[in-house]
Amino acid sequence: MPPRTLCPVTSNGELVKLETVYRPLADSVRRLIDATIRTQVDAATLTAAKEKIDRATEKLSAELMPGSFGVRQTGDGQSMAWGNVVIGLRNPVAPPLAINHEANGLVWTEFTLGAAYEGPPGHVHGGVCAMVLDHVLGATAHKPGRPAVTGTLSVRYLRGTPLGPLRAEAHVERVEGVKTFASGHIADAQGITVRAEGVFLHPRES
Amino acid sequence: MPPRTLCPVTSNGELVKLETVYRPLADSVRRLIDATIRTQVDAATLTAAKEKIDRATEKLSAELMPGSFGVRQTGDGQSMAWGNVVIGLRNPVAPPLAINHEANGLVWTEFTLGAAYEGPPGHVHGGVCAMVLDHVLGATAHKPGRPAVTGTLSVRYLRGTPLGPLRAEAHVERVEGVKTFASGHIADAQGITVRAEGVFLHPRES
Repeated sequence: MPPRTLCPVTSNGELVKLETVYRPLADSVRRLIDATIRTQVDAATLTAAKEKIDRATEKLSAELMPGSFGVRQTGDGQSMAWGNVVIGLRNPVAPPLAINHEANGLVWTEFTLGAAYEGPPGHVHGGVCAMVLDHVLGATAHKPGRPAVTGTLSVRYLRGTPLGPLRAEAHVERVEGVKTFASGHIADAQGITVRAEGVFLHPRES
Repeated sequence: MPPRTLCPVTSNGELVKLETVYRPLADSVRRLIDATIRTQVDAATLTAAKEKIDRATEKLSAELMPGSFGVRQTGDGQSMAWGNVVIGLRNPVAPPLAINHEANGLVWTEFTLGAAYEGPPGHVHGGVCAMVLDHVLGATAHKPGRPAVTGTLSVRYLRGTPLGPLRAEAHVERVEGVKTFASGHIADAQGITVRAEGVFLHPRES
């Protein structure tokens, strides 16, 4: 069980920066990741590109927060998981997923996974499917300011999930005390590729 | 089930490039990802860094392979999953994990996960734990040139996995025809944080 969430309040200045610079910066790094995997340029060009990247990193590193981003709160109490590996707008590893909550409890997201998420050739890594499903199923148990943590997750792979546009969805099967039982799947245009069931917990307030 | 692996043979020139430029390039992008998440520099510096990144991407994109990296073979038949999201040396999203196979069948890896893999504050995202375990358990069923794909994966979270140095290991419980039953875990210095069991399949040759 992780320790209680630390929630420093994020200033309006940071929120403005998110829209005007952090989000475009992370998107730029996402494009760079894709090009790094797929480039076929010669060694001299690779080295020249690396120098530019190192200079960018140097600029950004002039002032770094210690550790990791964590989860912060805006002035109006919304939690901002900008560093999250699945949904974090400032984390270039995150696709990032935009999670939608319907009034009936359905959680869904539509997203595209490219070369950076590959396992079997042309296909999403089975572990990435598990990661997406962990997050989407967990989101059914989400309460503002009190994210759920995973107790157990079971994933069943029906067929390979092709790289490209995908949809994941999940719903709550039942709630027992601090436990939320959820199920869901990932699908491509031809139908479901992976199913999952999970139990998610709200750490008791201490 | 994914289609049969396509294995274009990788030239010696590409292998030399891996060591001298691809690996250092991907490592540079990994440092950039971390700085992108943790930077606290002002908006003007962020914008200047983004310009450098975009120029690097432009250079690398002058010649891109279509689609994704896939899995290739070297002249001596070793498979090179350089684009793989977990172990790919050319994929900046991959930590990357270096997988060790012991003579007794044990598979293990030691690795460090930083800010880019965060879920709960200061902790590895549960989905990343599932991703790592999917790969490490699957590696117990690996045969040269015939990677296994996941049939089912069940993950049980004992406590939060802190960001930092970690170890994952797995072993085969039993083999039944094309199915390999494996189990394993992730541990930090204080012990096991997550356990997993999985069934992995070797697609039949068609």
